Amino acid sequence: MTVIEKTRRRESSRGKVIDLIRSSGPISRVELAEKTGLTQATISTLVRALLTEDIILETGRGESTGGKPRMFLELNPASRLGLGLHIGQDYITYIIADLRGHVVARRRVDGPGEISPLTVVSRMTRDIDALIAESGVRRSSIVGMGIATPGPLDRVAGTVRNAPSLEIWSDFPIRRALTSTTGFHCEFDNDATAAAIGEYWLGATEGYANYASVYMGSGIGSGIVMDGTIYQGVSSNVGEIGHVTVDARGLPCPCGNIGCLELYASPRIVVAQAAEAAARGELDIPLTGVISEDFAAVGTAATNGDATALRLVRNSADYVASAVISMVNLLDLQLIVLAGSAFSTAGGFYVDIISDALAHKAMARAIHPVEVRLSVNGNDAAALGAATLVLQDRLSPRTLRSVSFA
Amino acid sequence: MTVIEKTRRRESSRGKVIDLIRSSGPISRVELAEKTGLTQATISTLVRALLTEDIILETGRGESTGGKPRMFLELNPASRLGLGLHIGQDYITYIIADLRGHVVARRRVDGPGEISPLTVVSRMTRDIDALIAESGVRRSSIVGMGIATPGPLDRVAGTVRNAPSLEIWSDFPIRRALTSTTGFHCEFDNDATAAAIGEYWLGATEGYANYASVYMGSGIGSGIVMDGTIYQGVSSNVGEIGHVTVDARGLPCPCGNIGCLELYASPRIVVAQAAEAAARGELDIPLTGVISEDFAAVGTAATNGDATALRLVRNSADYVASAVISMVNLLDLQLIVLAGSAFSTAGGFYVDIISDALAHKAMARAIHPVEVRLSVNGNDAAALGAATLVLQDRLSPRTLRSVSFA
Repeated sequence: MTVIEKTRRRESSRGKVIDLIRSSGPISRVELAEKTGLTQATISTLVRALLTEDIILETGRGESTGGKPRMFLELNPASRLGLGLHIGQDYITYIIADLRGHVVARRRVDGPGEISPLTVVSRMTRDIDALIAESGVRRSSIVGMGIATPGPLDRVAGTVRNAPSLEIWSDFPIRRALTSTTGFHCEFDNDATAAAIGEYWLGATEGYANYASVYMGSGIGSGIVMDGTIYQGVSSNVGEIGHVTVDARGLPCPCGNIGCLELYASPRIVVAQAAEAAARGELDIPLTGVISEDFAAVGTAATNGDATALRLVRNSADYVASAVISMVNLLDLQLIVLAGSAFSTAGGFYVDIISDALAHKAMARAIHPVEVRLSVNGNDAAALGAATLVLQDRLSPRTLRSVSFA
Repeated sequence: MTVIEKTRRRESSRGKVIDLIRSSGPISRVELAEKTGLTQATISTLVRALLTEDIILETGRGESTGGKPRMFLELNPASRLGLGLHIGQDYITYIIADLRGHVVARRRVDGPGEISPLTVVSRMTRDIDALIAESGVRRSSIVGMGIATPGPLDRVAGTVRNAPSLEIWSDFPIRRALTSTTGFHCEFDNDATAAAIGEYWLGATEGYANYASVYMGSGIGSGIVMDGTIYQGVSSNVGEIGHVTVDARGLPCPCGNIGCLELYASPRIVVAQAAEAAARGELDIPLTGVISEDFAAVGTAATNGDATALRLVRNSADYVASAVISMVNLLDLQLIVLAGSAFSTAGGFYVDIISDALAHKAMARAIHPVEVRLSVNGNDAAALGAATLVLQDRLSPRTLRSVSFA
């Protein structure tokens, strides 16, 4: 066995133990051994290390069965913090989260716009310093920073590649730049994958091994969990549901493909359609030019029964449902979690329309249902996911994230 | 650790050892220990059992390094055989394959048509007896039978569910019936998944961890391998690429969904379009009513440069390419293997058109290429895959096939 293999195996056992203490704690060493299949001796060694590192605490006592009283173990949530950064088109969101995935501090600022990436990185570095200062957490307790952006991206190089909403960021070394300016270890992944990891950390997907997030910011992406493992594909460019074709003879997409979902259903498109309707006098809502705000306004109008707004939202949801069915027919999933700012006002329509479509159109509908629900993390799904992503990678490598065989 | 967990772990190590001996044999015990990360003692125990069971052989000697001469281990391919049965619409195919995935015997008969499943099962049972008798293999060396059918299916119940090409088989307990009439242990999966496993067994996917088969018989399906593991989803109803939408505002599909790929691109549709063209006097080819033969005739006419046949085949390939791009954009794959009878004459067109589409339209094209190639197993891909599927399950459980967490 090579050293790397030995290390990986140990890290994997350590990850299992941490995950179990998080999900089932307070828990005894005996239960840990039973549930992980590891020996008592291995559990003792791992637990001792985790106690020394202050990641877990001994707490209370189990019922004495006559012999030595049992100590229980639970997570020391504040012992390690993760910083999450989501660079969206409209907003940049920062979150500091603890070991339970709870938000300790949060800040949201305007999106990067057309400002040069180097300038934005300086601004982000100052924002991060300010957030840490105002939250009062020790900088040394932050194990690293997770960075989430829309895809496609080159995770190895740590760069965004031709993302429609972050055009001038193409090939800019985001991860390297932020590692250098903040001094934090940085992890990098797409927003939808981060959201799927965040959902798992908060326990919202418990009982489901095969599910996906559908993440709608200004574009649309998806994070896929298969057999309990975040799926990364060859190069982390997975879950591009926004570039699943809904009309093979349709419009050309800037991505190079034809008839992509984003062209028919993204908040950007719905807002453009709303602006046209407003120009024709068919819709009376204030439009600000900020996509997420304008999309929220359309969602509010639809909720209030405006016929035009309803038609636009339903049209978008129908197309999203179509791409979700394609994904479910390919991947035989149990659960779809809708995450991202776009679902904060119009989410109910999407849940209803996608649920209904899956119940009537998915191939495996006679064999098992596919549930659809809104993310427990609301607007923060990607940033919180990014924070949990770095916590996951620093504390329990290889348990949720898969190994790359590429 | 429960008994089940211990057994699983042992089977998983055993599977790894068998897989390595198959792919890298002749191989020494020392190399096995190095490559698996298992201890010398564990390797010795596993190898001793495999030698006793006659699954592997000791062979030759490595270069003596002064001490004890090294023995090498290799598979004893004829020691265990797998029977594969593919129930397609046009043909039923039987294959007996050895431990290397090589075909020992083969038989192909007409498809089940409208004859009652019970009658077909009797006929298949006689066909299997005849095949075993004429091939001269010992019945006792056959470890079981893999059954592959088009999806959707209920793998737990061992039944086909509403497969358009096997309508009267819906809910008929195929696996139970054949287990009872043949006495063999039976495994059951969809044809595209079986084809993907067969490709792996023959070493044709070596070096690729994330790939999919696209299986075209009369319909279209797909088998998906992720991070080196066959993906089964919640209920094995994965890879239904034939029911990925290519036109969300298109034709209603008998499956319940809208604008499914099969309605625009399946051999069944191409043959129907060819029949219309022939009726209009635009195409001069013999049509027999057997879809795979007629589709082959269209493929041959296209290869010979017939403009109408070319248009029909290219139209189908364009739509398949569109659905493949959707799948690749969701799953970030490295390789697409085209398998099934439909590709035997027209395969070249599909390879070219799908390759070209992926090179220009896939999201991750700037990061890595996606290769497209024809299956090494030609017409036998599903039946051979079914044979390897049962060998895999009987000899190396849990190494290629994933565990269900559902």
